[in-house]
Amino acid sequence: MISVDAREKLKSIVGNENYQDSNEMKLVYSYDATPNFQSLPDAIVSPKNTKEVSELLKTCNEYQIPIVPRGSGTNLAAGTCPTNGGIVVLFNHMKDIVEIDEDNLTVTVQPGVITLDMVNAVEEKGFFYPPDPSSMKISTIGGNLMENSGGLRGLKYGVTRDYVLGLEVVLPNGDVVQTGGKLAKDVAGYDLTRLFIGSEGTLGIITEATLKLIPMPEAKKTVLAVYEDLESAARSVSKIISDKIIPTTLEFMDQSTIRVVEDFAKVGLPVEAEAVLLIEQDGPIEVVERDMAHIEKVCKDMNAISVQVAQSEEEADALRTARRSALSALARLRPTTILEDATVPRSEIAKMVHAIKEIEEKHNVTICTFGHAGDGNLHPTCLTDARDHDELKRVEQAFEDIFVEAIKLGGTITGEHGVGEMKSPYLELKLGEAGVNAMKGIKQAFDPNNIMNPGKIFAKDERKRVVIG
Amino acid sequence: MISVDAREKLKSIVGNENYQDSNEMKLVYSYDATPNFQSLPDAIVSPKNTKEVSELLKTCNEYQIPIVPRGSGTNLAAGTCPTNGGIVVLFNHMKDIVEIDEDNLTVTVQPGVITLDMVNAVEEKGFFYPPDPSSMKISTIGGNLMENSGGLRGLKYGVTRDYVLGLEVVLPNGDVVQTGGKLAKDVAGYDLTRLFIGSEGTLGIITEATLKLIPMPEAKKTVLAVYEDLESAARSVSKIISDKIIPTTLEFMDQSTIRVVEDFAKVGLPVEAEAVLLIEQDGPIEVVERDMAHIEKVCKDMNAISVQVAQSEEEADALRTARRSALSALARLRPTTILEDATVPRSEIAKMVHAIKEIEEKHNVTICTFGHAGDGNLHPTCLTDARDHDELKRVEQAFEDIFVEAIKLGGTITGEHGVGEMKSPYLELKLGEAGVNAMKGIKQAFDPNNIMNPGKIFAKDERKRVVIG
Repeated sequence: MISVDAREKLKSIVGNENYQDSNEMKLVYSYDATPNFQSLPDAIVSPKNTKEVSELLKTCNEYQIPIVPRGSGTNLAAGTCPTNGGIVVLFNHMKDIVEIDEDNLTVTVQPGVITLDMVNAVEEKGFFYPPDPSSMKISTIGGNLMENSGGLRGLKYGVTRDYVLGLEVVLPNGDVVQTGGKLAKDVAGYDLTRLFIGSEGTLGIITEATLKLIPMPEAKKTVLAVYEDLESAARSVSKIISDKIIPTTLEFMDQSTIRVVEDFAKVGLPVEAEAVLLIEQDGPIEVVERDMAHIEKVCKDMNAISVQVAQSEEEADALRTARRSALSALARLRPTTILEDATVPRSEIAKMVHAIKEIEEKHNVTICTFGHAGDGNLHPTCLTDARDHDELKRVEQAFEDIFVEAIKLGGTITGEHGVGEMKSPYLELKLGEAGVNAMKGIKQAFDPNNIMNPGKIFAKDERKRVVIG
Repeated sequence: MISVDAREKLKSIVGNENYQDSNEMKLVYSYDATPNFQSLPDAIVSPKNTKEVSELLKTCNEYQIPIVPRGSGTNLAAGTCPTNGGIVVLFNHMKDIVEIDEDNLTVTVQPGVITLDMVNAVEEKGFFYPPDPSSMKISTIGGNLMENSGGLRGLKYGVTRDYVLGLEVVLPNGDVVQTGGKLAKDVAGYDLTRLFIGSEGTLGIITEATLKLIPMPEAKKTVLAVYEDLESAARSVSKIISDKIIPTTLEFMDQSTIRVVEDFAKVGLPVEAEAVLLIEQDGPIEVVERDMAHIEKVCKDMNAISVQVAQSEEEADALRTARRSALSALARLRPTTILEDATVPRSEIAKMVHAIKEIEEKHNVTICTFGHAGDGNLHPTCLTDARDHDELKRVEQAFEDIFVEAIKLGGTITGEHGVGEMKSPYLELKLGEAGVNAMKGIKQAFDPNNIMNPGKIFAKDERKRVVIG
């Protein structure tokens, strides 16, 4: 609950028109893309600049009002669900592309910029911003930064973190800090830049970011390799990389996913195949051609039934779009779709996919698996119905088994989605008590009143997707 | 001072033979590569494994004994000087290359491994570890991690931070934390990995690291471009990069440096030139040839007096070695050599070099400048005599002016050397009070008793290289 006094203060900061607390608005911002997590905020505010964000945070700190910064709400771990109420902060007034600096190869943006808008703006000038989360058409850069978003090109090009040179951040006490700059090298003190990247809105609010660009690769080729068995696909992945070729993209879909995606996208995917790999390479034309010839050969040597090189950009784009549509396609089948992102070392992919199949059978649930085979980042996706509490309990148990298995194989509970509220009970699996305590120490240092996105990353209790027992 | 009781405890942890406190040993470990900073430790200890490190830290915490982790002591900011006494921790028993994983493209090492030994080991298997600090022949990986070391290849390949996938870290309370793993993607909680990278031994001790490898580039070419004026060299740098070529190395030397290096290395550098650029490109042979032809053309268009492509690997190596020997060459001229690393955005290099020249004249000191032009990381190097207090005062003032100028141009007080004790009075220039306070909060959370390398990063008072007034 926000007191009358606090409400008036907040309104005086952002203006009446940027403070909304109608029931409709509260409902709209009560959830994100994560099924089955919902909680009403007390208000939705839209600051116009850094100064307003600073005053907002100071006021919320004074009144101990929870703050949930929110981009487009594509979060899949309930990271933008207003778990403890409070205010949801939107960045719809802070979406300028401030500068594209062609000498220093940087782009400076406000947090509300849509990822794809920024990508298009820099590509027009011949530059490349590699991180490409599947949600990039609607996600914001601010959200990408807060989640350290990954994407299909992670194997070769890394993730959001690898492209951030500097930040302007507002701390919970209202202080504004500038980190880094247009600098390839900067070791002045602790790496605050990367501490904020992936902090899921729990340490402060990013109000501006300077990102690194690279020259646009001159050519790109796409190939689809089809397999009768999973091991051959996994062996292809290993062999390509141990032959010292790092493709831009090395995506995997299992049979269940192939069938659903084909039914949705109609691009001619082989519905009888056990697995497909979508492989792309970019770079100078000579290198792309040489690498692609080698990749084709490896896939054939590893018993691919067919290896089909896209003959045109349209054909390549259709394949990419099909892969990107996996979540949407799967979501049509049953009322509730839960997409996970357990991640393992690349060498353990086949083992992990098999383990997921076993877990699926053990708990009698439906799991389709696709993901980024090249970087070990899998997306086991459960098709279920949130209204069926009994089934949901089994889903919960299946995911717990998946996380345990990922950790056992040297992996992690989340490769690119974040911990949010949903995976907070599992964080200790990955980090142990000592690691979680170290993180709690940082949280306490930055946000002693716990106003920043409370209930995220750190488990308050054992609440999982459904309350069991 | 270490009490008898504490000393016995420490000895019982590492063994008598690994606890040394003779006057000779204390003298040897009382300084690092930074001129004019010296302070005696109370003892030097050499733990054999993570468990011993953990017990050491617990004991030091109990008795509030300062701990200074030390690699090879090549630090240039007094980061490994035992400012407040206490124990210097060596890693001479922890120098195993634990594993080279060819499937996951990783190498796992203990902190005491010499950088070049690891580089040679991975290169034997056809892999490439790009970070190449100038001290790599003697520096340790542990030191590189603690300092986030840069090097000559930073422009294209990034710095140490960009190659760390996972760490085992011992916290000041003795807790052992595992961060990351053999994982291209991992967003489970805050980025502890990168918080430790560059933390200069102030947050904990790294006992193992898993680093990312990439395939070895198949070809490399080297060119030396000679200029009559600085602007032409700076314009070449800008033009190469705005033409969307990112060379591996783009090194700059001014006339004073050229002369000293040539006198030292005798590789035929043009001593009448105002500036030279040493440019290297690596990658697939076709690309290297194409890029080098373009780079040659750009340099000529920008009025280079000569552009000389190294005709053999020996010739290329001689040029590289000459550049790498700049510090040693300069160090021969006068008793004290102070090497700095003010860094600016690439576009501001010419302005910065001019500013350094003006500052040199204003304070009547001798400054030679060389460095990594491609990433804006300059090394203005002052040749002086620490015994001449009057001159040293002027040197101190000149460096302060240089830091202020770097910040004014959007730069930083240190690109790759770290803050250490030496630059701690200037940290606030870069980060403001709010930024420094945020960092102090982290330090306090991890190390409430301030046992880890106390006196570093955060200025205790205004002590600079000389006490002024």
